[in-house]
Amino acid sequence: MTYPTDTVVILGLGWIGGSLARALRRSGFSRRFIGYGHREASLRRGVELGVIDEYTLDLDAAIARADILVICTPTLTAATMLEQILPRLGARAGGPVITDVASVKGNLRDTAIATAGSMPPQLVLGHPIAGSEHSGVEASNVDLFLHHRVILTPVEGNDPAAVEVVRAMWASTGAEVLDMTVDRHDAVLAATSHLPHMLAYTLVDALASAAASEDMFRCAAGGFRDFTRIASSDPVMWRDIALANKSALLNAIDLFSEHLAQLRVAVQAGNADQLMNTFSRAKRARDEFAALLAERSGSKTP
Amino acid sequence: MTYPTDTVVILGLGWIGGSLARALRRSGFSRRFIGYGHREASLRRGVELGVIDEYTLDLDAAIARADILVICTPTLTAATMLEQILPRLGARAGGPVITDVASVKGNLRDTAIATAGSMPPQLVLGHPIAGSEHSGVEASNVDLFLHHRVILTPVEGNDPAAVEVVRAMWASTGAEVLDMTVDRHDAVLAATSHLPHMLAYTLVDALASAAASEDMFRCAAGGFRDFTRIASSDPVMWRDIALANKSALLNAIDLFSEHLAQLRVAVQAGNADQLMNTFSRAKRARDEFAALLAERSGSKTP
Repeated sequence: MTYPTDTVVILGLGWIGGSLARALRRSGFSRRFIGYGHREASLRRGVELGVIDEYTLDLDAAIARADILVICTPTLTAATMLEQILPRLGARAGGPVITDVASVKGNLRDTAIATAGSMPPQLVLGHPIAGSEHSGVEASNVDLFLHHRVILTPVEGNDPAAVEVVRAMWASTGAEVLDMTVDRHDAVLAATSHLPHMLAYTLVDALASAAASEDMFRCAAGGFRDFTRIASSDPVMWRDIALANKSALLNAIDLFSEHLAQLRVAVQAGNADQLMNTFSRAKRARDEFAALLAERSGSKTP
Repeated sequence: MTYPTDTVVILGLGWIGGSLARALRRSGFSRRFIGYGHREASLRRGVELGVIDEYTLDLDAAIARADILVICTPTLTAATMLEQILPRLGARAGGPVITDVASVKGNLRDTAIATAGSMPPQLVLGHPIAGSEHSGVEASNVDLFLHHRVILTPVEGNDPAAVEVVRAMWASTGAEVLDMTVDRHDAVLAATSHLPHMLAYTLVDALASAAASEDMFRCAAGGFRDFTRIASSDPVMWRDIALANKSALLNAIDLFSEHLAQLRVAVQAGNADQLMNTFSRAKRARDEFAALLAERSGSKTP
């Protein structure tokens, strides 16, 4: 099966979807960009900005015209979109190739299989690791994916040609594309992204509830600011991710809690060697990570 | 009792001590700056840089010449210094005024009382909240304390005039000086600084030990970088702080663990409302803190 790639439909034209359209237009991977969604003002703004060429509020029209459909909605909405899209594909053989950008993959795989009976060959789940600090098509950025990782999670039943279309699409934006199983993806993201958000939210909420909270926030400094920055993230987005990635997140919380309990024992016992070993191992791993990140991005802020 | 302030002796001439000497020279609060320590190379460098006027390797000479003695060594060394300094004060009535910059105050208060029999009137414990990312006199910065908080923890038995000397000294650097009890200081710092360091070290160490650790660090992004930046801090310094502030740190770990356990229950139960409430409360507190910090520093990076 070969798939055309001329027309990309973006479902949910925000920061990520807008940035993808801009990047694909620049790379020449596709020629025509159509927005679909409920918020007409966003879509109209997308046309004004030249991010998309046109838009539609009609899902059937969006599917009919798409060579590639990219679901760029929040995590739980993406599952709902699959429930609406997959039953409508019956009439079309082959395409469109469908992919997404959501932070959790297991719930979408499960929804797709539950909706379609088996994994649709042309549905290739993916996730660009691009942060979440901005929103809205106005903030979209043609260089957003440059040197960033995009994880694809192809599964049994996927058409390898569809996987290659999605891989080529992301590669054209300057991203580094890698493959992972759905479960590995969800475990890795739970540990490196979802858990840290939970920890930051938990810390800030715990301190805000403490008796000395006013003095605490008054005296906190730069380290605390950096550590808690992600606690300023959108609560709706993170509620949805916590719900969607429940099992992997629980595992990550448990792994962390076990290590924190060990550290507590060391503090209680005044075990200088154990503290020193833990902190040194962590510093080594963190310094290696910072070096890796700096090398990847050419950045100088570890 | 009035105290002269002409000559400041810095014990442990590193980033903090060097910055303090530079700031006090500029403000005119003192005129003569003497370094004391074991590492002669650092002290000689301090003279070359014009940070100090001279140095001595002899503690008795340092004490004899000081109007103000500032202990700028690491946390546990500061306790050892007090054990060496306080018995030598017998011969001198009144001064010198002695203060310090360590991150924990309870252990120093206890050491002072154990060594001298009661709190020496002229020993005023203090703590500039100025971060720990640099080290060495080369990195010292005349503006380091500008708009930063300095917490003084005067106790019963302190001479109010000595407290005012230390307050005026820090105020002359451009810092905002506030008073707190020793226990409140240690609890506040445990919560906002020591606990976050423990959490960051624990997270990085837990992930480094996980089966998928390579994929984890390969896919982690900017949020993880910020969240774990403090896990690149000096392990010796943080081992010492964990040992010195044991009881307050254990309380902070327990408060955090309780809140994390509650969050785990909410994730397990798929309790969307509880997740939303927790994240929203935390975001509100974090946004307020960021606004406070930005207002204080004129900074634009929340």
